[in-house]
This record gives sequence, C-alpha cells and structure tokens, in this order.
Amino acid sequence: METAVGIIAEFNPFHNGHQYLLDQARKQSGATTVVAIMSGNWMQRGEPAIFDKWKRAQAAVAAGVDLVIELPFSGAVQPAHLFAKSAVKIASEMGIESLAFGAEHPDMDYDLLIHNQPEKDDSFKKFNEPYASTFQNYLKEKTGINLREPNDILAFSYANANFDLGNPLKLLPIQRIDADHNEPELSKGSLISSASAIRNSIFGNSTEFSKFVPESSLHMIYSGFKYDWEQFWPMLRYELVKTPIEELQRIYQMTEGIEHRLKDAARKSRSFTDFLETVKTKRYTYTRIQRLCVYVLVHAFTDNMLVDPSYLRPLAFNEQGQRYLNQIKHDTEWPIITKVTDEVVDEFVGLDYRSSMMQELVSGEAQDIHRHPFMEI
Amino acid sequence: METAVGIIAEFNPFHNGHQYLLDQARKQSGATTVVAIMSGNWMQRGEPAIFDKWKRAQAAVAAGVDLVIELPFSGAVQPAHLFAKSAVKIASEMGIESLAFGAEHPDMDYDLLIHNQPEKDDSFKKFNEPYASTFQNYLKEKTGINLREPNDILAFSYANANFDLGNPLKLLPIQRIDADHNEPELSKGSLISSASAIRNSIFGNSTEFSKFVPESSLHMIYSGFKYDWEQFWPMLRYELVKTPIEELQRIYQMTEGIEHRLKDAARKSRSFTDFLETVKTKRYTYTRIQRLCVYVLVHAFTDNMLVDPSYLRPLAFNEQGQRYLNQIKHDTEWPIITKVTDEVVDEFVGLDYRSSMMQELVSGEAQDIHRHPFMEI
Repeated sequence: METAVGIIAEFNPFHNGHQYLLDQARKQSGATTVVAIMSGNWMQRGEPAIFDKWKRAQAAVAAGVDLVIELPFSGAVQPAHLFAKSAVKIASEMGIESLAFGAEHPDMDYDLLIHNQPEKDDSFKKFNEPYASTFQNYLKEKTGINLREPNDILAFSYANANFDLGNPLKLLPIQRIDADHNEPELSKGSLISSASAIRNSIFGNSTEFSKFVPESSLHMIYSGFKYDWEQFWPMLRYELVKTPIEELQRIYQMTEGIEHRLKDAARKSRSFTDFLETVKTKRYTYTRIQRLCVYVLVHAFTDNMLVDPSYLRPLAFNEQGQRYLNQIKHDTEWPIITKVTDEVVDEFVGLDYRSSMMQELVSGEAQDIHRHPFMEI
Repeated sequence: METAVGIIAEFNPFHNGHQYLLDQARKQSGATTVVAIMSGNWMQRGEPAIFDKWKRAQAAVAAGVDLVIELPFSGAVQPAHLFAKSAVKIASEMGIESLAFGAEHPDMDYDLLIHNQPEKDDSFKKFNEPYASTFQNYLKEKTGINLREPNDILAFSYANANFDLGNPLKLLPIQRIDADHNEPELSKGSLISSASAIRNSIFGNSTEFSKFVPESSLHMIYSGFKYDWEQFWPMLRYELVKTPIEELQRIYQMTEGIEHRLKDAARKSRSFTDFLETVKTKRYTYTRIQRLCVYVLVHAFTDNMLVDPSYLRPLAFNEQGQRYLNQIKHDTEWPIITKVTDEVVDEFVGLDYRSSMMQELVSGEAQDIHRHPFMEI
C-alpha cells in the first residue's frame, strides 16, 4: 500500500528551495510517494513559465519527485484562493494523505483565520486599493494575525480549501528558509534563492544561478527553449487591437471597463513592458493585468475558468510514481490522461490545449498532441 | 468647368510605367484633371502594399496626379471583376468622363467579350482548375479572343463594369509598353519595369530600381517604412490557430473546407512563405490564398465585402485636384471623408480602418485617426 504526500508548485524552475521542500515533505510525512501538482505553461502571476511543462516536470522527477500531475490552466492562472482550491481538490481526489508547503510562518493558526474571514459580498470591496490588502487588513483586525507574506497567503489558501472539502489532507507547513519570494537578486551566502532571482540570472545569460539549482535542473536550463512575455506580445497586441470591445468584455475577469484601457494601451505600446506600464493603476496590480492578458490571449471565458478539475494529467513519473498511479486509478472516476487526441481536447483539456498552443507557436515545440508523459527508468 | 480622366491603380510603387499612363491619360482625354482611384494598404493580390497609402498617394501627386481617392478595402482586395466594379462605380459617381488603363491589346473588342460571357452559374465551375482559366477558355471558344494577359483581363473588367452601369465612362485603353506584368526581373534596355520587379529590387537593397521610377518616388522608397507579408505572419498565424473552425468558416470566401488546410498549415509553418507552400494546391492560386489570409487577418465577412462603395476618401491632391473636388461635392450624396473619427469608422470606413490598423501595428505609423489628406501646394 503506497501513501503519498503532495506538493503544489510551479517549479519555475526547480531550485534548491524546492529540493528542500521535497526532502522535508518526504521525511516529515513518511509517505512512500511524493506527488507534485504543478502548473502547466502559464503561471499564477500571469506569466509564461520560463521552460515548458514537460521540461519542468522532467526536472522535478530527476530531482526526486515521484509523480508530476498538471494543474489545469483553469486552476493555475487564478488568484491564490482559486489556485489553491483546484490543486487541493486534485490532491484529495488522488488519495494524497498530507500536503506539504512552504510558509514564512508555519505555526500560523489557520483555523482561526478560516473562521474569521469576511463574508464574500461586493460591499466589502474598496475601489481604491487592491482586494488582497483590504482582506489582509480585515483579518489583522479580527485575529491579530498578519497575513502578508506570499507563502503564508498561499498556505492559508491551502488550509482554507482543505477545510472547505472537509479536511481530507493533513497539512504539513514547512518553514521557508533563506529566500524571499520574488526577491530579484540572488542570495549571498546561501544556496537558496527565489525562482524570480534565478530566472533573472538565466535571462541575464550569467551562470550565477547554477549553485542555486540542483544538478538535475542544469540540462534544462542550459539547453531548453526559454519563454518570456515579449514573445507573446505581437499576438496579444493583435488580439486586443482587433477584437471589438463587446467581445473583450466576455473574457474572464474583464470588469470595470479595463478592456478600454487594455485596447488603447495595446495600440500605443511597442513592447509588453511598455504596455504594462501604460495600463498599470493603483487598483490593478501587475499580476492582475498579466492574468487578464493571458485570458485574452487564450480566450478564457468565465465558463472555462470557474470549473472544478475533473481529470488527472501525469506529465512525468518514475517507477514509484507509476505504482502510485496504478494504485489510485480504480478509486477515481476522473480519467487519467496520458494521450491527447482531438476527442480529449474537446471533452477535457480544451483550455490547456489552447493555452499551450501559444508556446507551441513561439518555440515550435509540440505541447499536447504527440506528447507523452516522461518516464524515468 | 473642370473635366476629369480616371486611372485605377495600386502605385505599388509609382513607377515610369505609371508615369507614361498618366501622361497618355491627360493627353488623350484632354481633361483638366487626372484622378487616381488607388487601393489602400492591401493589394488586389492579397499582399500588403510596400509603402502605406499616404506615401503612395503623395508620390502619385508629386508625379502629376491631381487627386488620389482611396479604393476601399471591400473593392481593392477582390478578384478583378469586383475590383473593377468598385473602382468604376467611384469614377462614375465622381463625374469622371473617361477612364484610361493600360492593356496588352488595347484594340480588343470589349463589347464582343461582354456579350459572350458564360452565364454565372455554379455548374460552370470545374473543380480541378482555377475559375479564371475556365472562363478564358470559354471566351476564346465563343469569340476567338485570347483574354489571358493580366492587363487585358483588368481592362475587360473595367469595360464590363462600365457596361453594367450604363457606360458612364469613355474608355481609353492605352498600349502597355516594355514591361511584362509581374516579370520578376528588372528590364534591360528600357526604363519601364514591372512593379513587382521594382519591389524585388527595393527589398534586395539594391539601387537598381532607381532608373525605373520617377525622381518624385525616390524619397518614399529610400526613407519610407516597407511592409511585407512576413511582418504580419505572427498575427495571421495566431489568428488561424486559435480561431475555432466554425468562426473561420464565417470569413469571406472561406469555402470548400480550405479553413482546415489553413489552420493546419498555420500550426506547422514557421514563416508566411512556408505556409503558402504548404497550403498551395492546383485549385487554389497563391493570389486566392493570400486574399483569404488578408480576410482572416482583418476579419472580413461577406457582409463587409459584398458592398458597393458609398464614400469618397481623398488621400492626396494638388490645387487642381482640390478644384475638382469642390466642383463635384454638390453633385454626389456620398460623404467626402477627410477626417476619420470614431463615428466615421462606425458608419463608413470600418473595414478600411481595421485593415490599416495592421500596418499601424507593424510600423507604429498612424493610418487613419489623426491623418489628413496630403495637399501639394
């Protein structure tokens, strides 16, 4: 009887901090199997992953993860609470026993926070500041807990999603060490740096990043096709400029007239960076704008995005991962998708397919049709 | 009382052959004014003009044309008979007395051809060869006339369109000299070459073209932004790949399942040239495929394309051209558009605006809003 511990991650790219979390997860859970539920080609902050999902999944297995399952686009490119909800749902469906995650404050009282959330009504929203900080101020006032750091927020989101499902998962919060999330500079005097600092170093064509990632990630980093937003800019710009306002309004999360700002800025801007600067306001964070841009690019409508996950898509596994898959396959009614055909696209992975097609257009590397899970022997 | 002779042209770019036609038109007609009805930013063969409509119109006026009127996209990017129909309709509406055009065989009996056309029914079409050659074979059999050369075909189309309108225009066919239409090489021992040979020379970064164009075109050629299909390829490709088949089927002239070929080839091709090679079949000429691609790029539906012209849009004029415009403005109910506002876009020039926006995206040079006709003083 195999047992599993889950990790929810982007591995963008897999680095020493992930390695630490992986090792702690295995050790603290005592599980036989480590399952990673990993975003596909588009990240939670509305950016393309630097390497495609296949390469990232393979690097994760090479580093010791036993099984990598794709977190569908509808869960992956969402604010924290929906991201967490989709991933936790998948973990639960897979019979995973515990969920390990990094947190700045792993001793935080998640239950206290869960029971002191504001009611979800629109009157709560203030229009002059992003929703997240309003939410955080409310919690601070009610519980005294400062929920401000990015991994703490995600951790709380996992706990909350788990609570909503009846607590199927045992939570294993693990103290984050060394790296500040999204710190743009590589660490001095530590072997752990943030993924964004590592990406900056990779794009800077320096090799400084190399001590911050395991050996097993180096092949991908040195030889893999690298994506960034500017490669998708001509397509996004064309789409924003030529699509009538009424159609843009149908895109998921296109609210409050932002479509006019996007359309206008697209026409005037010569790069994605310029465009973001032009669109940015106090009310719209870069993250929110970037996510909206991904939705536009891949035609993500509310119907596509507000859905529960309903399939398991393995991207990579080793023998242990395969054993675990075999064990659970009779316990779930969800299909386990290892081959993408036209029918599978129509019935299940339509949005994943459409969104990964963008990477295919940029690099020429097939992403869905003709791709099979990587198996490490 | 001013009188006018019309020329229907693309001026892509204005060259010595156009200069000859212009001089002959003025001389043979005895008119006080030469009006050119010129395609905008997209050509009849489904290609972007090498220079934008403003630069081409200005060069034409600098070479002696008195007034340049834009032939709307709905007429400009069409097979010969519809191209001719739109342009002749505009000439007629403008009170132009005669129409000058080049022809390989200016003595051709257009009336005989007009009265011996096949009935326009579908049974006539053969599916293993392009429609044009079937049509030509039929005419040859009925009249003995070989209607094969490109300027003869256009000339016949003008005559036919004029006939359908009750012959408002006097026809002035003018013998083409020296250049073969679409001959890819510049002429030896002549000062006239085809526009396509001149474009090839310009793109080849040679200065050989310079003796084949009037002095007045040189500024545009040396300093103007140059367009070619490859610049639009990322946008076309994205559009073809991400648009569902049912929506592609709504595009003008998307028939016989060609949408599947286009979509499939778009995904596989890395350049527009590759793409054309992949899509090409005996039944689909390059011209037809290229036109379809423009329709896809600018979202041209049947409703937008099968319309009669209904406005006059001057792009450039000199004092004589302005005098002519003033004379005719009370005789037409069509608006004379010299300023494009949102209302003008909605009511009249929507498709022209959408299609020129593509050039604006590529070069950053405004095409409609904020642009005014060029006036030579």
